[in-house]
Amino acid sequence: MLHLAELTRPEWYPSIKDSLDVILIDHTHLEKRAASTALSMIFRYTGRSGVPRRLSEVVAEEMDHFTRMLDILDARGVELRRLDPAPYASCLVEEIRSQEPQRFLDKLLVAGLIEARSCERFSILAKEVDDPELAEFYEELFEAEANHYTLYTGLARDHFPEQEVEERLDALALKEVEALRAETDLPRLHSY
Amino acid sequence: MLHLAELTRPEWYPSIKDSLDVILIDHTHLEKRAASTALSMIFRYTGRSGVPRRLSEVVAEEMDHFTRMLDILDARGVELRRLDPAPYASCLVEEIRSQEPQRFLDKLLVAGLIEARSCERFSILAKEVDDPELAEFYEELFEAEANHYTLYTGLARDHFPEQEVEERLDALALKEVEALRAETDLPRLHSY
Repeated sequence: MLHLAELTRPEWYPSIKDSLDVILIDHTHLEKRAASTALSMIFRYTGRSGVPRRLSEVVAEEMDHFTRMLDILDARGVELRRLDPAPYASCLVEEIRSQEPQRFLDKLLVAGLIEARSCERFSILAKEVDDPELAEFYEELFEAEANHYTLYTGLARDHFPEQEVEERLDALALKEVEALRAETDLPRLHSY
Repeated sequence: MLHLAELTRPEWYPSIKDSLDVILIDHTHLEKRAASTALSMIFRYTGRSGVPRRLSEVVAEEMDHFTRMLDILDARGVELRRLDPAPYASCLVEEIRSQEPQRFLDKLLVAGLIEARSCERFSILAKEVDDPELAEFYEELFEAEANHYTLYTGLARDHFPEQEVEERLDALALKEVEALRAETDLPRLHSY
């Protein structure tokens, strides 16, 4: 359903489980970046039917998640410090074609795939983390991000022919796995 | 309370009343830009106490206003087309000093003054527009933007000495009136 070319390997959670606070900080920054991505698309594609309305929902929801992540960090006594992001998102952004309207299609699908991967990782966290409150929160976020995946790919299907969307989504889904594999030793939500 | 150096002159509403649909489009774009301003400050000043939490509220609220403006435009059969903005905001942004921490102070106060002016203009629209539903909406927005003014200036007072804030706010309030007077023939929320 999430159109990921490969599921997260079983080694991921063990590789980050002792750095949960870092993952939470990384995740907080991610919500902020997700809001920013959606807002910048509203600016760029104001005239594209459905974009302002549907992406303004995304911005508001990501900001709500951001605020709740701040609560979680506060409750754990963790400061929201700067973190180098995983190379994942910038690798994927490189796949966005520069010409319109392909650029618009790619931006929607890349945003959708990042939501899909986040969603999959949240479902792992929901199952694995010891803290039951945190597990419940990740269960809820899992659903929200799945809806965002559907929303982005739905916008793509509203504006482009079905076959073009499917082919490009297949191609970008392969690139998404490559981006996930991009070398990093850092424990991150989008590390390999 | 809003610290405006000058109230809107009585000629403003008559000058825009026949262009209400344009004002509504301008206002819709303004809500989007207000969200963007707050979000960019969260990125830049993540480590400043209170900034991420309080400004994420602003982003979510401005996005909610944006969505409701889309509803209002839809109900009136008005398309959200691109509009040249009034020179107001760009004139004010030129007053922001480039060195930190003065830049941080100025960004907070300029954002606060723009909210204050919007708030004052909304109160005029609330009194003057014929459509009772629209008038009620502007009454509500008036309160929201007044809260945003208080929030921005409150953050300034949390991070800078009271006297420095007052002096700079007085100076920028004078610049705000100059920015409002910047030549434009366009009917805008921030035209003179």
